Amino acid sequence: MKIFYTTAHHHHDPLFEFEGGRFIPAHERASRGEIIKAALTSRKLGNLALPRHFGNEPILRIHSPEYVDFMASAFTRWQERHGKDAPPAFPSVWPGRSLRPRVHTDGEAVLGHYTFDMGTPILAGTFNAARAAIDVALSAAHDVLSGARVSFALTRPPGHHAAGDLYGGYCFFNNAALAAQMLTDARRRVAVLDVDMHHGNGTQTIFYERADVLTVSLHGDPAHVYPYFLGNADETGSGAGEGFNLNLPLAPKTDWSDYGAALDQAIARIRNFGADTLVLPLGVDTVTGDPTGAFRLEGDDFLRLGEKIGALGLPVVITMEGGYRLDVLGQNVADVVDGIRQKL
Amino acid sequence: MKIFYTTAHHHHDPLFEFEGGRFIPAHERASRGEIIKAALTSRKLGNLALPRHFGNEPILRIHSPEYVDFMASAFTRWQERHGKDAPPAFPSVWPGRSLRPRVHTDGEAVLGHYTFDMGTPILAGTFNAARAAIDVALSAAHDVLSGARVSFALTRPPGHHAAGDLYGGYCFFNNAALAAQMLTDARRRVAVLDVDMHHGNGTQTIFYERADVLTVSLHGDPAHVYPYFLGNADETGSGAGEGFNLNLPLAPKTDWSDYGAALDQAIARIRNFGADTLVLPLGVDTVTGDPTGAFRLEGDDFLRLGEKIGALGLPVVITMEGGYRLDVLGQNVADVVDGIRQKL
Repeated sequence: MKIFYTTAHHHHDPLFEFEGGRFIPAHERASRGEIIKAALTSRKLGNLALPRHFGNEPILRIHSPEYVDFMASAFTRWQERHGKDAPPAFPSVWPGRSLRPRVHTDGEAVLGHYTFDMGTPILAGTFNAARAAIDVALSAAHDVLSGARVSFALTRPPGHHAAGDLYGGYCFFNNAALAAQMLTDARRRVAVLDVDMHHGNGTQTIFYERADVLTVSLHGDPAHVYPYFLGNADETGSGAGEGFNLNLPLAPKTDWSDYGAALDQAIARIRNFGADTLVLPLGVDTVTGDPTGAFRLEGDDFLRLGEKIGALGLPVVITMEGGYRLDVLGQNVADVVDGIRQKL
Repeated sequence: MKIFYTTAHHHHDPLFEFEGGRFIPAHERASRGEIIKAALTSRKLGNLALPRHFGNEPILRIHSPEYVDFMASAFTRWQERHGKDAPPAFPSVWPGRSLRPRVHTDGEAVLGHYTFDMGTPILAGTFNAARAAIDVALSAAHDVLSGARVSFALTRPPGHHAAGDLYGGYCFFNNAALAAQMLTDARRRVAVLDVDMHHGNGTQTIFYERADVLTVSLHGDPAHVYPYFLGNADETGSGAGEGFNLNLPLAPKTDWSDYGAALDQAIARIRNFGADTLVLPLGVDTVTGDPTGAFRLEGDDFLRLGEKIGALGLPVVITMEGGYRLDVLGQNVADVVDGIRQKL
């Protein structure tokens, strides 16, 4: 298995995010990428590979040109407003209910148009890191198109909360959706199975009106868990996409017994869809004690999770999403990969 | 003239707001109320009067019961989540574009449902202060209903950015809208003339589909100025309210020549509407050098502004909104009041 990885992810290494009325230490740090890389390589689950560079064309299949331009220039423009020594960029005003969404080219409002939380600072290097993560994801998709059974995209920053023109949840570009689109464009029939603790709102939104990509997500019930404002069971797709989005929100404290049952349901839907290729936005923030999580999966559960996915028998592109308990992050990711490879 | 005032406004005295990626000293401080009180009384423009207490009924004419309950319990619930020593409450996630608005009863999301900025912290005493400001505004409306030609509601926190179930822009309850509703319920034909630097998005939203209250606002063009996401000239009302909202957005650096011309246009519309009573959400953040502003009104301009309004010949309820240049705040407010009283 190839593990696509680049040190460019270090360009995005925020110290702080904002929650509870104050700055708190950021959960989504560069150290996460190194921990995952070390675990996968030390268990000899694959070989590191540098991503190849893809141009803008595959990006524009998912993200709007305006959004890509915004991301590319966001920190420079922030510095123009707040000075060379400006802190990381956070929004301060946004189009709340009864206000009017509009693209802003001036002032504080530009960030508020494009995001929905205070957890996702933009730093000087954020665009470089996020742009490199796109190449990492597309390289893994290309690897599967070239015949690989499983390919690992060590994407950092993660992507599944980012929609076509929206960032948030530590995510800037939707790496999994970009991989899914590349596969679809090569006539694969793609299912996206999101097993991160948090609903993949960006991925859902991107494919919500489409029948050619099935999106399935297991996650904490948004009544209690981030991103709060999407991920309910009644969101089943719309228009041509009606019936092609499956949300399986699960209660806080869910352990393997309920999780495994929901996973079986997800897998049955993917079989029924007739997918020939799987994209797996992989978060291991479902583990007991994850600082952003609410579930109670334990060590061996991640191996079982991988085995169930591997037993689908489909080629898999794995993109890395969440997982913030650093003491078990590497092991849990490696266990999922190990489980997939044992059954695939 | 009566100046309705209560020391309860001191319960809301935030030290910080959040802008530019960091906490900055709050602009909307309790000292503002004292400065205005001192200026009005020292110039003998009126006599202080305590507000009477109005029950919840007039509040529920404008704000939803859920919202009033939210505001009443917001800080207590914040403390339940973040501890007795919790900092002031700021949102950290909200229903951005493509997400799904919903009332949240749990988690970080409850604030994000109800607000649209990072400038409006909720403190332990915020509800008490904001609730008292309602009584201040209603007392002034009652005063005009009892025959006063002009009545001054020294409302702090201000109100014009608050909609029926939305807070923001230093505002929690819409004092001016509450006064306008009380007047309307007493069969007055009310026009609201908002002369704050910033568009009165809350007031506009509250009356947007109604023909019985005319809303007019002169303010900085939202392409460049807070609240950014409402206040354009093409927002003219909807449904039955079509034609009963007039926005006059003005460019940054607007001085008296253009401001006075726009004010004449506003006054002509109010005459044409046949208003018999005026509510004046008064902000003096239009002055040159206001830290939240972009206009260039100067000292004497505020006297002229008052004179033009007074010349309408209508009884006036004044509610206090913005104005953050503390060195001229009192004088500018007093000049507006002086101008009104000279012509009325």
